[in-house]
Amino acid sequence: MRRIILNNPRKRNALSLSMLESLREDILTDVDSPDLRVIIISAEGPVFSSGHDLKELTSAQGREYHTRVFHTCAQVMTLIQDVPVPVIAMVNGVATAAGCQLVASCDVALASDKSTFATPGVNVGLFCSTPAVAIGRAVPRKVAMEMLFTGTPISAHEALVHGLLSKVVPEERLEAETLAIAQRVCGASRPVVALGKAAFQRQMSQGRDAAYASASKVMVDNLALRDGQEGIRAFIEKRKPVWSHRVENVHD
Amino acid sequence: MRRIILNNPRKRNALSLSMLESLREDILTDVDSPDLRVIIISAEGPVFSSGHDLKELTSAQGREYHTRVFHTCAQVMTLIQDVPVPVIAMVNGVATAAGCQLVASCDVALASDKSTFATPGVNVGLFCSTPAVAIGRAVPRKVAMEMLFTGTPISAHEALVHGLLSKVVPEERLEAETLAIAQRVCGASRPVVALGKAAFQRQMSQGRDAAYASASKVMVDNLALRDGQEGIRAFIEKRKPVWSHRVENVHD
Amino acid sequence: MRRIILNNPRKRNALSLSMLESLREDILTDVDSPDLRVIIISAEGPVFSSGHDLKELTSAQGREYHTRVFHTCAQVMTLIQDVPVPVIAMVNGVATAAGCQLVASCDVALASDKSTFATPGVNVGLFCSTPAVAIGRAVPRKVAMEMLFTGTPISAHEALVHGLLSKVVPEERLEAETLAIAQRVCGASRPVVALGKAAFQRQMSQGRDAAYASASKVMVDNLALRDGQEGIRAFIEKRKPVWSHRVENVHD
Repeated sequence: MRRIILNNPRKRNALSLSMLESLREDILTDVDSPDLRVIIISAEGPVFSSGHDLKELTSAQGREYHTRVFHTCAQVMTLIQDVPVPVIAMVNGVATAAGCQLVASCDVALASDKSTFATPGVNVGLFCSTPAVAIGRAVPRKVAMEMLFTGTPISAHEALVHGLLSKVVPEERLEAETLAIAQRVCGASRPVVALGKAAFQRQMSQGRDAAYASASKVMVDNLALRDGQEGIRAFIEKRKPVWSHRVENVHD
Repeated sequence: MRRIILNNPRKRNALSLSMLESLREDILTDVDSPDLRVIIISAEGPVFSSGHDLKELTSAQGREYHTRVFHTCAQVMTLIQDVPVPVIAMVNGVATAAGCQLVASCDVALASDKSTFATPGVNVGLFCSTPAVAIGRAVPRKVAMEMLFTGTPISAHEALVHGLLSKVVPEERLEAETLAIAQRVCGASRPVVALGKAAFQRQMSQGRDAAYASASKVMVDNLALRDGQEGIRAFIEKRKPVWSHRVENVHD
Repeated sequence: MRRIILNNPRKRNALSLSMLESLREDILTDVDSPDLRVIIISAEGPVFSSGHDLKELTSAQGREYHTRVFHTCAQVMTLIQDVPVPVIAMVNGVATAAGCQLVASCDVALASDKSTFATPGVNVGLFCSTPAVAIGRAVPRKVAMEMLFTGTPISAHEALVHGLLSKVVPEERLEAETLAIAQRVCGASRPVVALGKAAFQRQMSQGRDAAYASASKVMVDNLALRDGQEGIRAFIEKRKPVWSHRVENVHD
């Protein structure tokens, strides 16, 4: 289990270019190790993340620098969905703009009930168009558009109802509930989870029939994994499975 | 109105290959008859369906057999969406893995408030990748992913809020409410419903402008149906329409 | 701020061809003027809109006329999403069929708590296939399908939970809450909002990676706008931004 903690509360955990680069590195480190099973992203202080560092986005830095910032940001957000382990956001406070995009990009997201979520870029003349890629794919269109056009925050409860969050709990239980979900994920076989996560991302971008064709093949491949067969045998024999956590086929 | 009842409660209504084949046959029988207007799928016993029969998925059966199981399963699930009459799931109990996929695949789904829904395959080393095709298109992504990664069941109420179900009622009213919806569907013209159901599936897989082009043509075709004109005339004349339930055009 | 009021309550604000044409004209008038920042669509009387005028859809008018009706309707609905200013629906009453489609097509939608939403075409032999294009992209599939197959109305609260509405308020506060949201939108820079709205529609029709590529470029373009830089400078200098509302780049 890897914990990544946004650790610049004085700057409201702004996703500066260096913060994004360090996040990318933290996510990628040993990501292919059989020992890594889940990543939790949380933050120090009352703001989960306020999004991009606006001081980096003035005309002084110039178009090329701006391009690099958004390119790196998109890399981090898509990386979260593409790495072979689930990434859990644990939010205790305010998540705005690219900070809200980060929450939307995680596979699972828990928040304390005092947390709020907003895309207020429109108020500072920078419409949250890249956050909208993640948020527009997490919540219904009209929810996303009202957030984008008005900048008005939504509560943790609204975020839960609309699909931005997986679970909302009182602040004092946030850590324990997050760890409980992380433990459940760690209790599963790593290659099985990796196969399933990749298959999910792939099939969701396909039409229904292509999705069934690709997912059906994944099921058969999953059954050929040593851990796939171990799980089924353990179930039939009414015992706990013993995972190898390795990408090995039954007949390898 | 056709009732299909999963009838192997001793095996938790597992979707074995033979159960899937029989389901496919039950759905297809006389599916083009003007007398068939709606199909209801329900189950005997406290488990709606526990999904695939794991005993069929051991390495003893081999890759070819596994492929056939998932191919048949995808056929049944897509058939439900492609037949010309609405298919209603009536769930009273636990629906897991491919059993949950079956609920997600139906056009309308009612459940008693004690029912629960889960994709626990990850716990037995077989990630619910094919159930995810149907569930990921029914509920928000993060809801689907938490179900898939943790295997934790969601309640009927959560399933309703997130779009997996159309209605949740107390157990004692489940049958009556389901029949009431089925009766409403039977009160409509069969070719009108068939045209609309097919158009819905098609346009949802298209981009917005192509969707409007195809759906607009469907509206014009619908108006050319004898039952389309009968409905509008009846409305204008303030009387009940008398449907032919046949695919006939006004000028045929 | 432009108010468009459906003003034929005696005919339940039916979207006749002439009503659709006048709606199209109202939306397009001066739509490129820097002074226009938001459009509000509301209605006189207890019915927001009952949808198409069925008297225009009898076989007497013929296929060509029907085609023109649905073509014009699709134009209006897509225009709402494509014009450079947000369009807000303010609903106080019943919105059915193409009337419900109109609500689903707006960027933001508020309704009084007594409002209801339905697609009852199936009951008069005309399945709501074109309304389904907008509604199927606003709410979960099963919610859309139950509405389409049964024609049963959903409440404003259900519409809110499922994403058809942005906000539900008591009737006496509907006007004030709608104007408050409209004012917020008017407080933002017009070219920033226009860029963001167009980017949202575009990226939502793309795959994730293409969406990030196009949205990232939009962010950089937004930063090159005079109003983009003014907003960021104002934020850093802790003052209110002064928008030009004009499409001008910093280095123009």
